[in-house]
Amino acid sequence: MRVGELSRRTGVSVPTIKYYVREGILPAGQLTSPNQASYDETHVRRLRLIRALLDVGGLSVAAVREVLDAIGDPSRSVHKVLGAAHDHIAPGLGDVADAARDVAERQVAELIAARGWHVDAGNPAARSLAAALAALRRVGHEEFAELSLGAYADAAETIAAADLAYVARHTAREELVESAVIGTVLGDAVLTSLRRLAQVDASSRTYGERAGS
Amino acid sequence: MRVGELSRRTGVSVPTIKYYVREGILPAGQLTSPNQASYDETHVRRLRLIRALLDVGGLSVAAVREVLDAIGDPSRSVHKVLGAAHDHIAPGLGDVADAARDVAERQVAELIAARGWHVDAGNPAARSLAAALAALRRVGHEEFAELSLGAYADAAETIAAADLAYVARHTAREELVESAVIGTVLGDAVLTSLRRLAQVDASSRTYGERAGS
Repeated sequence: MRVGELSRRTGVSVPTIKYYVREGILPAGQLTSPNQASYDETHVRRLRLIRALLDVGGLSVAAVREVLDAIGDPSRSVHKVLGAAHDHIAPGLGDVADAARDVAERQVAELIAARGWHVDAGNPAARSLAAALAALRRVGHEEFAELSLGAYADAAETIAAADLAYVARHTAREELVESAVIGTVLGDAVLTSLRRLAQVDASSRTYGERAGS
Repeated sequence: MRVGELSRRTGVSVPTIKYYVREGILPAGQLTSPNQASYDETHVRRLRLIRALLDVGGLSVAAVREVLDAIGDPSRSVHKVLGAAHDHIAPGLGDVADAARDVAERQVAELIAARGWHVDAGNPAARSLAAALAALRRVGHEEFAELSLGAYADAAETIAAADLAYVARHTAREELVESAVIGTVLGDAVLTSLRRLAQVDASSRTYGERAGS
């Protein structure tokens, strides 16, 4: 197909498509004449992946390039590629070194040990969890870790099991990794939205106003 | 305390503190002389809340003002204030009207009905959930809704129950609402980080590399 049809199919403008080709995150089309290139279904799929990572994942173009390079590099193990993607998608919390941070880091280490999770304490997600718990402590919510963290960890395990089952349907490496990256990025949006809905429901039942209906 | 100590206690610079006062999101200190104001613990706590909403929640200063106004307005019910906060914290996904979107909206309506959730179909979180499911469909992950959505909804219910128990410890209205807002914003970061950790653990067990240790 020509670039105009690729644009219509994906909702991405022609100048933006050309920009992605220049940035090296979208392969160039096959030249059919000096001024015309032909694109195929792999371009449609790649463009949708790029838009998901940029718009939903909030990644920069440079981060998208790194994730796509990792997906396409057969020498990297699945586990390593997932790690590369996670590094870019991890929620970015400011790192302030203080007493709240020290306590939070200890709580994260204890949680990981208690759950028997196979993760390095230096994992970016462990750091961002400690940053979130420290931020809670600083605004007077030190009880959160004690009262709610266990339920959150239970929920995270439920989701991770579903994610793994979802991803493991694929046997081809590129499909598997792409599925995991997409699932991580879009799964966050799904989960955040569902949490809001379940909260609205709980708030409505407890604080008495029927939302809508 | 003077503004310099307020700055040290909270890690927020003096010019930024003055900016928040000008923007009307931080109450001015008590004037003790024409050029000097005195601040107290309510300012410390408010500043930490502002930083949590800005840095962790990713809200704009205008959105922070609306949420704080809602917290401070006794004529608004708890349920309504939570709704105001949610409107600003909902993940912002592009709204594209297409066939994928139509299917996703139907799936969300079915999920809400099946779960018996008391939420309006026009709820911002219902819209962002539909946007996320539509984005998954567009990148070829239409199976997600069928295979994984139930586990995600189970997890969301677990968390909402924990959130409600956490918030309901408070009886004072302002504390209760502040707790809910903080919990919603920072709870997202906690949950996203935990989901990553549980994924790393699951990936490590399945794809064979021990992360760290």
